[in-house]
Amino acid sequence: MLESPLQKKRMEYKPKIPEWLDEDVCFEKVEGKKGPENIKKLFPKTFEASAYRLKKGKGKNGHVKIGVVFSGGQAAGGHNVIAGILDSGAEVIGFLGGPSGVVENKRKEIRDIHFYRNQGGFDLIGSGRTKIETEEQLKASLKACNGLDGIVIIGGDDSNTNAAIMAEYFLQHGSKTRVIGVPKTIDGDLKSEDIEISFGFDSACKTYSELIGNIARDALSAKKYYHFIKLMGRSASHITLECALQTQPNLALISEERRSLKEIVLQIANLIKRREEAGKKYGIVLIPEGLIEFVPELNELPVERDPHGNIEVSKIQTEKLIIDLVQKEVKFNVQDHFFGYEGRACMPTNFDANYCYALGKLAYLAVREELTGVICSIQHLAQPQEKWTFKMVPIVQMMHLESRLGKEKPVIKKALVDIKGKAYVKFSALRKSWELEDAYRYPGPIQFFGDPELTDSVPLSLK
Amino acid sequence: MLESPLQKKRMEYKPKIPEWLDEDVCFEKVEGKKGPENIKKLFPKTFEASAYRLKKGKGKNGHVKIGVVFSGGQAAGGHNVIAGILDSGAEVIGFLGGPSGVVENKRKEIRDIHFYRNQGGFDLIGSGRTKIETEEQLKASLKACNGLDGIVIIGGDDSNTNAAIMAEYFLQHGSKTRVIGVPKTIDGDLKSEDIEISFGFDSACKTYSELIGNIARDALSAKKYYHFIKLMGRSASHITLECALQTQPNLALISEERRSLKEIVLQIANLIKRREEAGKKYGIVLIPEGLIEFVPELNELPVERDPHGNIEVSKIQTEKLIIDLVQKEVKFNVQDHFFGYEGRACMPTNFDANYCYALGKLAYLAVREELTGVICSIQHLAQPQEKWTFKMVPIVQMMHLESRLGKEKPVIKKALVDIKGKAYVKFSALRKSWELEDAYRYPGPIQFFGDPELTDSVPLSLK
Repeated sequence: MLESPLQKKRMEYKPKIPEWLDEDVCFEKVEGKKGPENIKKLFPKTFEASAYRLKKGKGKNGHVKIGVVFSGGQAAGGHNVIAGILDSGAEVIGFLGGPSGVVENKRKEIRDIHFYRNQGGFDLIGSGRTKIETEEQLKASLKACNGLDGIVIIGGDDSNTNAAIMAEYFLQHGSKTRVIGVPKTIDGDLKSEDIEISFGFDSACKTYSELIGNIARDALSAKKYYHFIKLMGRSASHITLECALQTQPNLALISEERRSLKEIVLQIANLIKRREEAGKKYGIVLIPEGLIEFVPELNELPVERDPHGNIEVSKIQTEKLIIDLVQKEVKFNVQDHFFGYEGRACMPTNFDANYCYALGKLAYLAVREELTGVICSIQHLAQPQEKWTFKMVPIVQMMHLESRLGKEKPVIKKALVDIKGKAYVKFSALRKSWELEDAYRYPGPIQFFGDPELTDSVPLSLK
Repeated sequence: MLESPLQKKRMEYKPKIPEWLDEDVCFEKVEGKKGPENIKKLFPKTFEASAYRLKKGKGKNGHVKIGVVFSGGQAAGGHNVIAGILDSGAEVIGFLGGPSGVVENKRKEIRDIHFYRNQGGFDLIGSGRTKIETEEQLKASLKACNGLDGIVIIGGDDSNTNAAIMAEYFLQHGSKTRVIGVPKTIDGDLKSEDIEISFGFDSACKTYSELIGNIARDALSAKKYYHFIKLMGRSASHITLECALQTQPNLALISEERRSLKEIVLQIANLIKRREEAGKKYGIVLIPEGLIEFVPELNELPVERDPHGNIEVSKIQTEKLIIDLVQKEVKFNVQDHFFGYEGRACMPTNFDANYCYALGKLAYLAVREELTGVICSIQHLAQPQEKWTFKMVPIVQMMHLESRLGKEKPVIKKALVDIKGKAYVKFSALRKSWELEDAYRYPGPIQFFGDPELTDSVPLSLK
């Protein structure tokens, strides 16, 4: 394989983590909240677990053997999680092609990770969307993990839900394999008071913001088109909110405002009319992919349904639907875009590269210190690395009972955009001024060298 | 306006040009070929003009006043052309919104260009697609240019054709305003033995290649989808060829191979089958936007036609058409993408920033030295700046008679991909090995700081 010059240079980057993470460290229990009572009976062995804080001090010794698996969609930095575990001294087994690789015990030993350091994608071992849920799958996983001191599941909300279930199952069946979760997802919806942000979000948003900025500058130069840009993100609008703060479009829709489609269409039509009065026949509109799930008219829309009559939300081309509806109100020239795959497997920003490497180190320590059913939590991420704090938090604390396909299931609650949160409030205060004035901001491509202001910036919605 | 940190940093970048360009320089005539005889009568005043080479030596003195206009689609670096003219000491008038700004004499004086240095887009003065062709338009332009020593037309093949016509018209009508062309277009099809490359091509290709690489890494990680990626470029496939060399996809179609749609569809279906046999259900296919114009079956396709029965090529969604046809041959999961606007108004690479700044300096000198009907030519661009050579070439030399909408017109011949050229030959030698092996190369985002290998690379198809 002929690597690009940037691929090679990035292999040499040394992620920045607090120095003491490589010294003698151990965990101490911290007072924490418990998960909701109604899931207690489902997690008899793990429900009462505490959170643990990492501190300086003598920890356990000894060699550990750790399995790793990527679960779900790509997010930049995943390879660095594995690098962090490997560099800590663990023997590392990678399960291939996602959780199905655990169930089917498809694996390879990972010894050299040089070509994958600070690189995008999950291609070292692949990823997949299988969920480990059934008794049969859990049994097969337990068998596959035999001889492993721990398994690190790098995934989103559903994958970490599975991690909690595996941890409980493993304990109930006398397995010594610890199950550790690592918060991954570009969507940014795996978030709690302990999880400030999932990895991959920063890189994805910076890539999309580069493109949105480029398109905005084109729109402002050509003065000819409205660009309706749909942004990936299953339900929540975190990505759209972050990209809006980065690029200052004329309009950014936020699903969590739960406005009616009718209201949205009229708002856009009105914006286009007012801009035309100001001599402007162009503009930028950001649309979160999940928008349609939140509109109250969802059930009345003329959209595709599956054989059971259910709306297939993922098949709705929301941006095109909105364009069609707005065009019934006002004439305008439009181009539509959808950005998703462009930013999932990009080279991780320094933020994600550092964060992931530290997550790997933390996951290793959790296995070594024999914790299970816990997820890695690093806090104060917007501050310099030396201020970061490290915790392992019981996943059950993040769970609740939710009805899925008619069944009550214990799941991690998806974190939506908090319309009382600082990021939304800031956006809300600014957006009016973006409508008629063109206050476009052009972030440009992710930079890896030069001024730390460029290379080490953190997501605006984290500040 | 709140600029991003990168916008601000890039304002400070000093484009690299040969030092002697700012010293005493003048032009000397060089032996050159003439344009085709059959356009001679259309250009009585300019047909016999010579090309001029820039050399050290005492040139003319005196203040010049220069009008500038952007014509056509955005290309990264345009603002630097103006910066080059301004920094040379000229008084600069910008015509607003493209050539229609000349016809209607909509203008503004440009004094401070700080916020636009090394930035993308044409938004300082805007751009447009009007052509200055009719007697009425030419007359109005002549009037608008009254008092200007020169007008610099920054545009593609058609815009430079217009520049040649204006130069001839201006001379015939006793105007002293010189008309100078600057080769702009991301498409890369304004190319000749004198024009190695147009500006904007490098930045656009690097932006698209970043995205293609990201998507390829995603495909290789998820192993789930074929990604069919259409790339902008009106007719020629230069962009697709360059991006293919940069990213090494499984397949890149080149319009200039003039293969039948049937053959293309069978080739893709066959590739998908062979990859499936090798256990691979994913891949990357690049499709040039202009492909459909070159297929012999164009007239038999079930596509939209205008009221006159003519096929509207630009409305054919080539990538979707091909996907539909391939899906009749073989089952596969696919995502389609179209990249165009993402790379036209991006921040210029150092290559484009330097090239454009030098083009501006050269355009200024051409006006000062009273040349007209000429286009800026900088050669040896793949070498360090000190090796660059500078010429002004009569545009008529690049022209020929072509039938357009039933009329014989003198136009600049669009440069297609030369299937005997080095870039195509290299691609052709490599592509077989990309089909089954995944030799994806990940260029990553454009870098502006650090190792010159990263920041100052030139297009692969220029090497």
